[in-house]
Amino acid sequence: MVSLVGAGPGDPELITVRGRDRLAAADVVIYDDLAGRALLDYCKEGCTCLYVGKRCGQHSVTQDRIVELLLAHARAGRRVVRLKGGDPFIFGRGGEELIATAREGIPCEIVPGVTAAAAAGAAAGVPLTHREYSSAVVFLTGHENPGKPESTIDWAAYARLRATLCIYMGARKLAGIAEQLTDGGLAIDTPVAIVSRASRPDQEVKLLTLADLIRGAGGEIAAPALAIIGEVARVPALARELAASAASA
Amino acid sequence: MVSLVGAGPGDPELITVRGRDRLAAADVVIYDDLAGRALLDYCKEGCTCLYVGKRCGQHSVTQDRIVELLLAHARAGRRVVRLKGGDPFIFGRGGEELIATAREGIPCEIVPGVTAAAAAGAAAGVPLTHREYSSAVVFLTGHENPGKPESTIDWAAYARLRATLCIYMGARKLAGIAEQLTDGGLAIDTPVAIVSRASRPDQEVKLLTLADLIRGAGGEIAAPALAIIGEVARVPALARELAASAASA
Repeated sequence: MVSLVGAGPGDPELITVRGRDRLAAADVVIYDDLAGRALLDYCKEGCTCLYVGKRCGQHSVTQDRIVELLLAHARAGRRVVRLKGGDPFIFGRGGEELIATAREGIPCEIVPGVTAAAAAGAAAGVPLTHREYSSAVVFLTGHENPGKPESTIDWAAYARLRATLCIYMGARKLAGIAEQLTDGGLAIDTPVAIVSRASRPDQEVKLLTLADLIRGAGGEIAAPALAIIGEVARVPALARELAASAASA
Repeated sequence: MVSLVGAGPGDPELITVRGRDRLAAADVVIYDDLAGRALLDYCKEGCTCLYVGKRCGQHSVTQDRIVELLLAHARAGRRVVRLKGGDPFIFGRGGEELIATAREGIPCEIVPGVTAAAAAGAAAGVPLTHREYSSAVVFLTGHENPGKPESTIDWAAYARLRATLCIYMGARKLAGIAEQLTDGGLAIDTPVAIVSRASRPDQEVKLLTLADLIRGAGGEIAAPALAIIGEVARVPALARELAASAASA
């Protein structure tokens, strides 16, 4: 039996109750960088924790090898948890792992998790949807399949939606993305919230605009980072202003 | 102090560890239908649980009244949890509640949750993204602000993205949405997974196509329901097929 478990954004309190229980019962846990190491404290004594981290660019352990490990331990009758940052089915390659277990006839359960965009919104005080500002939210990755020659994302089409755009794993490409979005019609002063390491003790929030991104005014952005682009990113400034007037009243 | 807590999809094991802890510490919990009643078992003895359910169309308690309740209990020095189905910042009106607390100078924390689309994907075995099928996912609502005269969603623009589309709260409008998506260029045989009451004991999954939706072949769809539209919705059939060949091999 394999469980693909969403770890949430990193803070061990932001895993689900079921996710924590699956970790506590696991014989083998296969984890990487996006799933915070602190979560392993939930594991029972004697649990085998296998690190298969893939830091940006460096594929220390290939996806094929991860699947092999999963299957080998499951075939040996062990309770296997594949712990994945965020939600297993949102930019998590969980679909590939589900198909691989099906191919071998091994039962596989999915335990959903808090995806990075929700954690980033909570951290920054940015609602991803808001009746007045945005009635749709899009999750995109700035870091596509490295096998693809170039980005296949039509950023102009996304610009025209006037939806909230959440960019996963694209910190180093944000200037280029911002340019394509403004070329596509998004206002140059569209607000952007960039959240690095959402929910972790060293979390950072930057409130910028597309113009800032284009001229590189955001400074260093620590990974993992998530960018929330759209009118909703005005909410933190608005809330701060309201709180200040409440305090002075 | 107010906590806006994402309850997740309804199964009490799919709230986060922090969300559960906030419920256990709360003096007052304000909840509605989307946050499963079973979650209230986490509350301490003597906690006041206020139901402010808004069933489709019938607004028993207005949003203004909910905010009033929140603020009144917080001003009285009580620990208040506003428990919201899914994630508070994804179609949850959490942004409005955050702004209302800021206006009064009341500290407000957001505890993110598992959004309905992630729970539906997990329930149906449909990854919301997949390297081969879709590199973006969109959350939309089929049920917009009732104050708006008609839908302002440009469905054709969404059809052209070739992204996974997750439709929240639109069960009764799916036939019309499916028509607009095919008019916009989505293939008539595009697969659709409809998940009713994801994660609850009476959960239901229907695997259909846009054509099925248009001719009303899906039958009754129980609320709350979430529709996942796109190539990724082929994965459950593929996984079932692979598992069947594994079993017969």
